Amino acid sequence: MPLISLTTDFGDLYPAAMKAVILRINPAVQIIDITHSIQQAGIREGAFALYSLVRYFPQGTVHIGVVDPGVGTSRRALAIKAGPEGEEQFFVGPDNGLLIPAARCLGEIKVYEITNPEIMLKSGISATFHGRDIFAPAGAYLSKGTPIEAVGSEILDFVSLDFENFGIDGSFLVGEVIFADNFGNVITNIPEEVVLKFSNFGSQIEINSRKVSFVQTYGFVGPKKPLALIGSHGFLEIAVNKGNAALQFGLKSGDQVAIKIV
Amino acid sequence: MPLISLTTDFGDLYPAAMKAVILRINPAVQIIDITHSIQQAGIREGAFALYSLVRYFPQGTVHIGVVDPGVGTSRRALAIKAGPEGEEQFFVGPDNGLLIPAARCLGEIKVYEITNPEIMLKSGISATFHGRDIFAPAGAYLSKGTPIEAVGSEILDFVSLDFENFGIDGSFLVGEVIFADNFGNVITNIPEEVVLKFSNFGSQIEINSRKVSFVQTYGFVGPKKPLALIGSHGFLEIAVNKGNAALQFGLKSGDQVAIKIV
Amino acid sequence: MPLISLTTDFGDLYPAAMKAVILRINPAVQIIDITHSIQQAGIREGAFALYSLVRYFPQGTVHIGVVDPGVGTSRRALAIKAGPEGEEQFFVGPDNGLLIPAARCLGEIKVYEITNPEIMLKSGISATFHGRDIFAPAGAYLSKGTPIEAVGSEILDFVSLDFENFGIDGSFLVGEVIFADNFGNVITNIPEEVVLKFSNFGSQIEINSRKVSFVQTYGFVGPKKPLALIGSHGFLEIAVNKGNAALQFGLKSGDQVAIKIV
Repeated sequence: MPLISLTTDFGDLYPAAMKAVILRINPAVQIIDITHSIQQAGIREGAFALYSLVRYFPQGTVHIGVVDPGVGTSRRALAIKAGPEGEEQFFVGPDNGLLIPAARCLGEIKVYEITNPEIMLKSGISATFHGRDIFAPAGAYLSKGTPIEAVGSEILDFVSLDFENFGIDGSFLVGEVIFADNFGNVITNIPEEVVLKFSNFGSQIEINSRKVSFVQTYGFVGPKKPLALIGSHGFLEIAVNKGNAALQFGLKSGDQVAIKIV
Repeated sequence: MPLISLTTDFGDLYPAAMKAVILRINPAVQIIDITHSIQQAGIREGAFALYSLVRYFPQGTVHIGVVDPGVGTSRRALAIKAGPEGEEQFFVGPDNGLLIPAARCLGEIKVYEITNPEIMLKSGISATFHGRDIFAPAGAYLSKGTPIEAVGSEILDFVSLDFENFGIDGSFLVGEVIFADNFGNVITNIPEEVVLKFSNFGSQIEINSRKVSFVQTYGFVGPKKPLALIGSHGFLEIAVNKGNAALQFGLKSGDQVAIKIV
Repeated sequence: MPLISLTTDFGDLYPAAMKAVILRINPAVQIIDITHSIQQAGIREGAFALYSLVRYFPQGTVHIGVVDPGVGTSRRALAIKAGPEGEEQFFVGPDNGLLIPAARCLGEIKVYEITNPEIMLKSGISATFHGRDIFAPAGAYLSKGTPIEAVGSEILDFVSLDFENFGIDGSFLVGEVIFADNFGNVITNIPEEVVLKFSNFGSQIEINSRKVSFVQTYGFVGPKKPLALIGSHGFLEIAVNKGNAALQFGLKSGDQVAIKIV
């Protein structure tokens, strides 16, 4: 049974238009919503959402990602094949970096520009909703087994994006907030192995000049107490047990975090 | 693989009750949420949501719509067959106009009152949740191939509804806001062909005494700048690039818009 | 076609990780979201959501519930078989009472502690996301027909929970708010049969010192008027026709309601 995932900043209603188009082309596909609540035009946030989940999906999944402030301008439409032969997954979306971290975490990637009108919506392409008119049909065809070479030519100069802007700055380990989840947990781009070079579970660490316990899970501190942990995504996360760290620390996507290491 | 869509003002939890009832009757059906965030009792808004998407769904889809302030009173329950033979889709919901624009945009419609207790929930009908007790089972039976004549008798005096209350008033083209989406884009009931009689892409137009650029897509104006465009639904839409037009213009469903045409 | 339901306080994104894990193990399963908007750590509220819907689901459904403030601590993971032979449904989630009212309303229950690593995520168990790493795979295996005895040993000392803390106190029938829905309808734990001992439809009743009409459905009082009714769940519910009773009465989950009966 083929599988398509959707990651967008569309909120309500528009995802259903994409699903209708997909199911007309491939009635046997199963569609999973990753999220439709990416902040408007939040390309980095959307890229992280898709990246954090992709390794849990089965081989052959087609991921359609649409956070697309440049829709209707000259930005290109992409289809990507990622991962080793026999374990590959596919990605469809705009050429703005959104799909790249997720695709790369599966292994080698091959990137194609979608130009073939045969795999787009036959009734015409709107200037504002390529999710429905280009990405949904392209993804549906890929989920049916259409070879990726049929979408258009391979390209090498696609827009890249990564989460690797973290590092040592004097006596601080500095990184970036890449996602704040529904609990108000603040997820940074600092990976587990880097954090563990400087801190041990059970110690106190100082984040943005504030002392918090570095522990394994929420229940290891009292209610409403802040903590740092390695989140389920494998990155340093700042949380408040039964509370909201994004509010308590005043942190949102894109903000800097600095952890004192000396 | 049969398909059912759901459009309601239920928010959370209640849609799952409908899905459980549907899947008990037809375990092979696929269910797509159009939206469950229609404003409470927002019949026109719900009618537009369904209308804007219906032509993208495959033949045979059963659309269940429940925006139903009259539930438990004497308002009737309807099942509708719409569109030419071989391309028909079905609609199930209350007799308050909600289903009519979507059904009519597919072609000829035949409307039946649901009265047959055999296609309702066997364990009893609550006074407040016909979505679960009547519409979900009726839709599930239609998706399994039960002929629509089995639900009850054809009727002609159903409640109608349309979006055609737009027109010229002195030096203004006047219409109504029919939907504000999650981006804050304000969708009016003025169709593309009417707008293009009075305006060209690239010109300035004056909406509710405010000048905005009339362009093809969001990225054609600067960030936070207002624009007018033909939205992906085929209607005049007021937007703000990377911003919220509903807030900036103070417009919501039902409000009037007046476009200066002289 | 097997069916899995999900009930969590995860909001966005995390449910998709659970779905990916489930579909890798059982690609043929259909997944229904009951809700992901339970208030953070709201075990009673989550228990009610699941309880209110479970009898509408088909035989064999596996319900995964994750409202789990104790994740990563010593609280146990459970799998439950509930209901008579041939009508049984299954439940998977933490040992904190969340699953018990729903399971018990189907009949006899048998409770097992999940300890078998073979039915957990092979790539390792995080300290904070057992929904993805333990409950999703265990539920997926049950949906494929793995016998429940394979998850671990039967236990009898699981954490219980019920909604039966209602009763007569002097001249009052006293109960608890167990859920406030998206309409602001306030659902209490006082069952229909208890209410009907003291009140008849059409009468006035006094709730928290405020007189309201006790009627069959919302449309029986004027717009913005308060009412009491037997909700679609079979419990006393306080509502405002086209309005929000939770706001108007200042009531939320866990609050007390007192109905004057003398």
